[in-house]
Amino acid sequence: MSYTAPLKDMLFDIQHLAGIEQIAQLPGFEEAGLETAQAVLEECAKFNEGVVAPLNVDGDRNPSTWKDGQVTTTPGFKDAYRKYSEGGWQGLQHPQEFGGQGLPKAIGAACCEMLNSANLSFALCPLLTDGAIEALLTAGSDALKSVYLEKLVTGEWTGTMNLTEPQAGSDLALVRTRAEPQPDGTYKVSGTKIFITYGEHDMVDNIVHLVLARIPGAPEGVKGISLFVVPKFLVNADGTMGARNDVQCVSIEHKLGIKASPTAVLQFGDHGGAIGYLVGEENRGLEYMFIMMNAARFAVGMQGIAISERAYQKAVAYARDRVQSRPVDGSGNGPAPIIVHPDVRRMLMTMRAITEGCRAMASVAAAAYDAAHNHPDAAARKQNQAFYEFLVPLVKGYSTETSLDVTSLGVQVHGGMGFIEETGAAQYYRDARILTIYEGTTAIQANDLVGRKTMRDGGQTAQAIAAQIEKTEGELSKRGSADAKAVAKRLGAARKAFLDAVSFVAQQAKSAPNAVFAGSVPYLMLAGNLVAGWQLARSLLVAEDLLAKGEEADFMRAKIVTARFYADHVLTRAPALRDSVVEGADSVNALALEAF
Amino acid sequence: MSYTAPLKDMLFDIQHLAGIEQIAQLPGFEEAGLETAQAVLEECAKFNEGVVAPLNVDGDRNPSTWKDGQVTTTPGFKDAYRKYSEGGWQGLQHPQEFGGQGLPKAIGAACCEMLNSANLSFALCPLLTDGAIEALLTAGSDALKSVYLEKLVTGEWTGTMNLTEPQAGSDLALVRTRAEPQPDGTYKVSGTKIFITYGEHDMVDNIVHLVLARIPGAPEGVKGISLFVVPKFLVNADGTMGARNDVQCVSIEHKLGIKASPTAVLQFGDHGGAIGYLVGEENRGLEYMFIMMNAARFAVGMQGIAISERAYQKAVAYARDRVQSRPVDGSGNGPAPIIVHPDVRRMLMTMRAITEGCRAMASVAAAAYDAAHNHPDAAARKQNQAFYEFLVPLVKGYSTETSLDVTSLGVQVHGGMGFIEETGAAQYYRDARILTIYEGTTAIQANDLVGRKTMRDGGQTAQAIAAQIEKTEGELSKRGSADAKAVAKRLGAARKAFLDAVSFVAQQAKSAPNAVFAGSVPYLMLAGNLVAGWQLARSLLVAEDLLAKGEEADFMRAKIVTARFYADHVLTRAPALRDSVVEGADSVNALALEAF
Repeated sequence: MSYTAPLKDMLFDIQHLAGIEQIAQLPGFEEAGLETAQAVLEECAKFNEGVVAPLNVDGDRNPSTWKDGQVTTTPGFKDAYRKYSEGGWQGLQHPQEFGGQGLPKAIGAACCEMLNSANLSFALCPLLTDGAIEALLTAGSDALKSVYLEKLVTGEWTGTMNLTEPQAGSDLALVRTRAEPQPDGTYKVSGTKIFITYGEHDMVDNIVHLVLARIPGAPEGVKGISLFVVPKFLVNADGTMGARNDVQCVSIEHKLGIKASPTAVLQFGDHGGAIGYLVGEENRGLEYMFIMMNAARFAVGMQGIAISERAYQKAVAYARDRVQSRPVDGSGNGPAPIIVHPDVRRMLMTMRAITEGCRAMASVAAAAYDAAHNHPDAAARKQNQAFYEFLVPLVKGYSTETSLDVTSLGVQVHGGMGFIEETGAAQYYRDARILTIYEGTTAIQANDLVGRKTMRDGGQTAQAIAAQIEKTEGELSKRGSADAKAVAKRLGAARKAFLDAVSFVAQQAKSAPNAVFAGSVPYLMLAGNLVAGWQLARSLLVAEDLLAKGEEADFMRAKIVTARFYADHVLTRAPALRDSVVEGADSVNALALEAF
Repeated sequence: MSYTAPLKDMLFDIQHLAGIEQIAQLPGFEEAGLETAQAVLEECAKFNEGVVAPLNVDGDRNPSTWKDGQVTTTPGFKDAYRKYSEGGWQGLQHPQEFGGQGLPKAIGAACCEMLNSANLSFALCPLLTDGAIEALLTAGSDALKSVYLEKLVTGEWTGTMNLTEPQAGSDLALVRTRAEPQPDGTYKVSGTKIFITYGEHDMVDNIVHLVLARIPGAPEGVKGISLFVVPKFLVNADGTMGARNDVQCVSIEHKLGIKASPTAVLQFGDHGGAIGYLVGEENRGLEYMFIMMNAARFAVGMQGIAISERAYQKAVAYARDRVQSRPVDGSGNGPAPIIVHPDVRRMLMTMRAITEGCRAMASVAAAAYDAAHNHPDAAARKQNQAFYEFLVPLVKGYSTETSLDVTSLGVQVHGGMGFIEETGAAQYYRDARILTIYEGTTAIQANDLVGRKTMRDGGQTAQAIAAQIEKTEGELSKRGSADAKAVAKRLGAARKAFLDAVSFVAQQAKSAPNAVFAGSVPYLMLAGNLVAGWQLARSLLVAEDLLAKGEEADFMRAKIVTARFYADHVLTRAPALRDSVVEGADSVNALALEAF
């Protein structure tokens, strides 16, 4: 088996950290208790382990290819996608009225992780479809919804997000694609979009492009961007497929990783204009796009966790198998499996602790999302929404930045074999490298964290999280164990470092923006590090309790060790990050531009 | 120009940190003063910028290919290698009696960096030849020297190092290749060697393989390994080329990076035995191999610096060119080149500071090597040798580990374009990934640092270095500038962290080897971080002095800012590394093996 879903870990988080039984008390989630979670996850594991994971290497070796505007995906992808669609996996979290299952995100996030662990390239297609669904659910007219939503939710068609243009990457103010209003209420869209994931492919009959464009006369900058649906094939009034729309895939990119996922250059309107349908109101495209992006950002964070998990599993398997050198403590006479060597253990523990920490963080974020949407109490919804929104850039930024380290360690554990492509460890290293870039680079996530999530409320949400962490420290300190005490100490130091950084950011952001944004990414990394460490600390408390009850002793001991490792080797990085934020801005901004 | 040698930075280090004028006072280096350094470096820059660097991308796109035992290198490589050889670059540091120029390593190291910045794959061939030269100089008989040395020093032939076998990677005790003594004093060598860099290629007429093998009846383990010269073509008594030897390249690897460098599987003795010549004495192969490896390890450290420099240059060029988003401080109305954005500056400064810090460290290490070999005073030689030997694992380990971060940041600065192979940033990221693995993984470097370099002398060399650092702190504290004071503070904190780690390692290594080796890599990273930061602190002192004299104000200011940045953003990581070493071992070793 090339991938085994970490069901026990996932269910531990869903039960004890995300609190699935509380989620199941929210209106709309009555069926979504632990038993459902377990049943869904088991089925999901079976599907991904058996159908999707085996195609991962194939996708790297036989990437999608382009010919005369057509994209042919890796052999096997089309069939796997059909099974994905038939299994109802696309609709897991989407409303039942459009053919979905309406499950909470706390369950959906774990399924998202599995799909991405199995095959990052494959998983991108559903990930983008999810974004299109979110946008239509939020802002689409009833007419648009009725034509497109069910087809997307069932996975019969797929969706894309068309933001980037050659001159407009992170800066959407520079978008130039035009949308000319037509007498019949449609628009003629023309322009070039690049980096369009699954912008063209052969797995389904129709592709629903969500496209940012400007209507003539619209305000300059981001306030003049509108969102359009531009289907590959027009849809007739009776729901049957109509004419081919004027959107062409002119090429796909030759990339470092995720090679099976076609990254298209799309040309809209070269032959008279592609017919597009306005989503929501004119000039509110950026706002709607953010809804799609917030969903997509969380999902990309899950990709970071997913690729880390897969890299960890491969490294562990190799470390058990590879025999080299005697144990340093003289405990054996001959060469031993390298997993006994302390530095290999250190690398594996680092991979493991970061992966589990990020998963735990994402799991509680998902639970907050569920409460933010379904809680009957408005104040609780608001509080959960603020917590979730604070965590999205951490899930995206921290889980993906650390995935670069984790997949790199995965290569390192393999030694020279790691550098040979046939081994497979290098693929994870290459695939992961996009994660800190797309759906907003880490700097963009950090801008969001600084601006919308910290500055705007004067640091209140951040401080509220710190207060919760302090409570966890209190619980840890009451425990008798050395592990709990050690974790409490590290958590406290990291929390104080975080609070310093929060104060600095909240107080200086307006008066000294260059200083604050010089430390925005270290601030994000500090916050992510802390929140992940906090969730592992919570898992230690749970594990100690269950261990005392005699439940699954080996598993619980591993949870405790992992939390302790994270505290001693990862949380300890917090003060240096604090220094970068609070005391490091001068040297970031001091060098004359000509001197670089 | 795709690469511009950082001559000013290199000469600053050579003059002010390595102290080239003192080196020129050592017997044998009388001609090697600053003027010589400048002339050699300028010529070297011209050659590498003009001839070698332009082939770097070609090498990645059209790697070496294998057919029927022959390896064809990338078009252009053969011609460039001929120019390299004709220019006398292979012999730069080697003795004049064998056709070299006998220049100090302080100059050679800079030339090594340039060649590797220009083209890591190309540079590997000379790097391995250097290793073969070192081994023959140290242990070869006069007969072997007379046949092979001049051919290698002039670059007419190239050399290889044959250590690894499928079952013996880091663990040379597992070497199985056999060498049967023959009546004529030669040996018949048979076995399989893997990962042999430039083990076969078309750039020269003959390849001199240095091969580790066992003579029947030799002791088990590393004490029974001998070193042999096994030429691709035998050499007749009159120096003309003789018969083809029984060594065949059966395949080359498909790798993540350095694709132009053929990584060969060599089969020795499938047709009766390859004729080999013993180097030095029987069963002392490991000792000789270590001589080659120490040279090669330093050179791989230079590769880390070299690829970091190249990635930095590319990122700066892109950041100047790419226009996206308004300045966060409201200083402009329209989108600006991204180099003005604080997070881009932070990334570029990180790349720059680490690269300069590692270069400065390597430069003083090279100077110590020169003094260790040529100083007339035995005590000075010994002291310099100890310093150099302590620094080799840092130059190798720290410069290469950080090169992974630096080349990754290089991709990140490019945003989505960084993930597209045509951009070129991804090549550096892929190429760099081997550097922490070959010539001894970082863990192997760390074992060396812990065992031979710290434990063996009870931490004395480490403490002596710390004492020198404390002196530098004293000088910094006397300065009036805020920069000097800030650097003094960070350097002091890092030094104290280091001393804690040294005590722990020196005291516990024998009694608690698992605990010490659990922190060996963090210990190496701490030491490397500190020494690099120390050298930048020294460069700040020099730059302040020269600035006061009105010399090259812009350049000196940049030196000061870079040292300050390193102190505030990189040296600050030292305490966390100390915690991993001193307090982190338990959680590294606690997890049950079955629980991974």
